[in-house]
Amino acid sequence: MPTRFPPDYYINGILDGDRLRLSRAITLIESRRVDDQELAQNVLEALLPKTGNSIRIGITGVPGVGKSTFIEAFGTYLTTLGNKLAVLTIDPTSQRSGGSLLGDKTRMETLSMNSSAYIRPSPAGDSLGGVAHRTRETMLLCEAAGFDVILVETVGVGQSETVVHGMVDFFLLLMLAGAGDELQGMKRGIMELADALAITKADGENVSAATRARVEYQNALHLFPPTDSGWIPPVLTCSALTNVGIIDVWQTVQTYQQLTTQNGSRVLRRQEQQLTWFRSLLRQGLERQFYEEPNLHQQLLALEAQIRSGTLLPAPAVQKLLRSNLHSR
Amino acid sequence: MPTRFPPDYYINGILDGDRLRLSRAITLIESRRVDDQELAQNVLEALLPKTGNSIRIGITGVPGVGKSTFIEAFGTYLTTLGNKLAVLTIDPTSQRSGGSLLGDKTRMETLSMNSSAYIRPSPAGDSLGGVAHRTRETMLLCEAAGFDVILVETVGVGQSETVVHGMVDFFLLLMLAGAGDELQGMKRGIMELADALAITKADGENVSAATRARVEYQNALHLFPPTDSGWIPPVLTCSALTNVGIIDVWQTVQTYQQLTTQNGSRVLRRQEQQLTWFRSLLRQGLERQFYEEPNLHQQLLALEAQIRSGTLLPAPAVQKLLRSNLHSR
Repeated sequence: MPTRFPPDYYINGILDGDRLRLSRAITLIESRRVDDQELAQNVLEALLPKTGNSIRIGITGVPGVGKSTFIEAFGTYLTTLGNKLAVLTIDPTSQRSGGSLLGDKTRMETLSMNSSAYIRPSPAGDSLGGVAHRTRETMLLCEAAGFDVILVETVGVGQSETVVHGMVDFFLLLMLAGAGDELQGMKRGIMELADALAITKADGENVSAATRARVEYQNALHLFPPTDSGWIPPVLTCSALTNVGIIDVWQTVQTYQQLTTQNGSRVLRRQEQQLTWFRSLLRQGLERQFYEEPNLHQQLLALEAQIRSGTLLPAPAVQKLLRSNLHSR
Repeated sequence: MPTRFPPDYYINGILDGDRLRLSRAITLIESRRVDDQELAQNVLEALLPKTGNSIRIGITGVPGVGKSTFIEAFGTYLTTLGNKLAVLTIDPTSQRSGGSLLGDKTRMETLSMNSSAYIRPSPAGDSLGGVAHRTRETMLLCEAAGFDVILVETVGVGQSETVVHGMVDFFLLLMLAGAGDELQGMKRGIMELADALAITKADGENVSAATRARVEYQNALHLFPPTDSGWIPPVLTCSALTNVGIIDVWQTVQTYQQLTTQNGSRVLRRQEQQLTWFRSLLRQGLERQFYEEPNLHQQLLALEAQIRSGTLLPAPAVQKLLRSNLHSR
């Protein structure tokens, strides 16, 4: 087991912008050990008044869309403006090992050498709720450490997008231009989560296809209901190779921040996000308590098989489970 | 309290297609009394082998889109083909009184006089899970009673659409043509649930606007990922006044049925729906047990206020709640 320090070690370190102590605190957050969790919550609680001041941006897109190169270009631009940037990546396929860290570092070579940027991959672990839990709290630690912009990257094919959408101010969907290929593997429903679409790789021979795609998606999105904040998601094109359009993405984020500051919808969105997170953690906690019951998992699998085959209805199955659980207490 | 009968009264009545007994059984399903629920579950269990043979269609759209008149025209057409039709409507604003029944009956005058059609409004009660629960089981009773097509209508502005999408084979979204008006009050995300869109009121001076809207939405939907079954949702126009396009809606449903029968996706979708229903009931059951604890509600509200104001993090709040609940057992 790695060395643990008293809370102040992490708290003061983070407030001083000490990267090593920040990283160690994140490791605590990600730990499953009960004492680590307790320590991590103490650290978080002390830092809570220093959180909430960054712009939180979620970035997603299917594999191949160029998320890493986009983040390199976008992130580097943000640091040239004087911003301190944290990049949190969630990879559902990654293991809880140093390999993924290395992989991500390699993916963002320029940014990882940039002293104004901090890159931290989040191992997804075994539950999406867990992802949300750890990534949200990691985000708070980064805010307390003084980062101005936090990018949360997901792979865009699973359920993690909904989770990430539930923790950021602005959700950016990266897309490819090309005859239908841009939809390969994309999850249905994800487009209606986006606060903006950006067509990537808009360079060289691709420019005209990207521009065409931009117009098509822009027309399409106008046919969809606006977001709660009254914002109609724009569609942009950009190139991480030529840097064309990268500034526009940032300007879009800033326009959105202005709108949602003025109409108060960002504060509301964040409050709602906190409450939703709370309720989802509570539900998970209740389920965990429930499933601790021995034999319950077997019983559950047997009932699910009957339900799937159409020989048992959900309501009586639930009754059976809840009753046998109560009796065994 | 109304009279209750032994299970066979309902079971045999429903299998004989007796409307009165079917209605009485649905009243049992909707009852909150424990003995009614037990009786209802016995009836359902006996009828289970006779269920699953109808085409289940969800219909939604914002108020003013013409859902009732569409269902009148569409339903009447279905009965002329020899189908027996059940229409279940969910109205979140309705009370558990006869008023809503009368209201719905009046709304669908022709269909309510049609001996091949059966109309049943579902009062929404106080929880959407409840809606799902009762409407799903009502649907099963109607299947056992021999109805070939079941239409489940929702108002298209709240969360009930997701719930209804989770219980039907085919989800139809009705829309108005008109400069942006068609999006008034529509819930974001609902379009990606639709298996087909139908632009209503495509008659008289409205025809060209409806046709234009059809083309626009068709182009837009092509830019979205296909559904799991590989189906690209088509966009239709129809008029309940002239009946033009009503046949096309039915042909679309049938084409979809063929596809999803052939590729097996309907069976999978139904199995998934059952399991999702089961898990959601189980979660509700666990939460109900939890919230039975006295003082818990007050405690919850206090914690939520702290979370909203940003002075408490969700994870420690959940720990407090779960611990105090365990201690009080």
